[in-house]
Amino acid sequence: MAHIQRDRKKLLTRVRRIAGQVAALEQALETGDDCDAVLVQIAAAKGAMHGLMLEVMAGHLSDHLVAEPDQARREAEAAVLLDLLKRHAR
Amino acid sequence: MAHIQRDRKKLLTRVRRIAGQVAALEQALETGDDCDAVLVQIAAAKGAMHGLMLEVMAGHLSDHLVAEPDQARREAEAAVLLDLLKRHAR
Amino acid sequence: MAHIQRDRKKLLTRVRRIAGQVAALEQALETGDDCDAVLVQIAAAKGAMHGLMLEVMAGHLSDHLVAEPDQARREAEAAVLLDLLKRHAR
Amino acid sequence: MAHIQRDRKKLLTRVRRIAGQVAALEQALETGDDCDAVLVQIAAAKGAMHGLMLEVMAGHLSDHLVAEPDQARREAEAAVLLDLLKRHAR
Repeated sequence: MAHIQRDRKKLLTRVRRIAGQVAALEQALETGDDCDAVLVQIAAAKGAMHGLMLEVMAGHLSDHLVAEPDQARREAEAAVLLDLLKRHAR
Repeated sequence: MAHIQRDRKKLLTRVRRIAGQVAALEQALETGDDCDAVLVQIAAAKGAMHGLMLEVMAGHLSDHLVAEPDQARREAEAAVLLDLLKRHAR
Repeated sequence: MAHIQRDRKKLLTRVRRIAGQVAALEQALETGDDCDAVLVQIAAAKGAMHGLMLEVMAGHLSDHLVAEPDQARREAEAAVLLDLLKRHAR
Repeated sequence: MAHIQRDRKKLLTRVRRIAGQVAALEQALETGDDCDAVLVQIAAAKGAMHGLMLEVMAGHLSDHLVAEPDQARREAEAAVLLDLLKRHAR
């Protein structure tokens, strides 16, 4: 069973919490003008998204690079991970 | 008028697009198990959140550090910005 | 007096520590092959460079955005900062 | 042969270029006070450090997660990588 299936419950809990943060942010942007609070909310939601990414990456490493017996498949999955790091980290 | 009021329309457009990305991600996590696609979706949503943060920061700099005539207020707002950078950037 | 002059001593202490970290890293790459240790050293040096950047940014904000009485100059300095954040953060 | 041995030449080229950037930065901090230029130099050196990290990570993935036949060793190396990402990325 793939890691997303196995971790589905905790991943959904995380993504739903993020959806709530984004909804609260939309509300704050619609009605208010407290930009300090908005910046803190944005940073918190971005941090939560990063936490979700690390959790999916952990499952990815565990299933597709550690447990995967086929070297060619490991190579393809390592490339996906490296590409993601190259494009999205600084 | 504060920058969040002035930029409200484009900030709401951004945050609603992010809400859509998070909803699509929730859907992908509920029904699928394609973790490569999920990682790419997460990275895209996180990048969009970063773009929103930069846009609010730009308004913050412009209103509270450039246009603000009172030095003590500029000092307080610079502290907010620096604190955010210290805690949320790497 | 500009912030770099005022903070020169502590900024030089930081940059010399980083130079030492980079020299140790060069040494480790020349003679060894312990990649876990090398990765940790690289991450530490990168973190130290980030700390130096935040320290210079703090001086920049303080001198050129808080204490600067001329609004046009504040505008130019805010643009430098924002451009840096746009190009180098994720 | 370990990836650091195999990639030694290009890794040393990178780290020596970084050492040059850090030396130039030290020089700029010792004699000057142009903080915009200093910020750009710091950001460039930090970016070069990040590039070096990605290059070592690529070798790490390739040798210790793709080519490594022993699953327990792959597990240990995946943990090193994940720990690094957890502590040093945002």
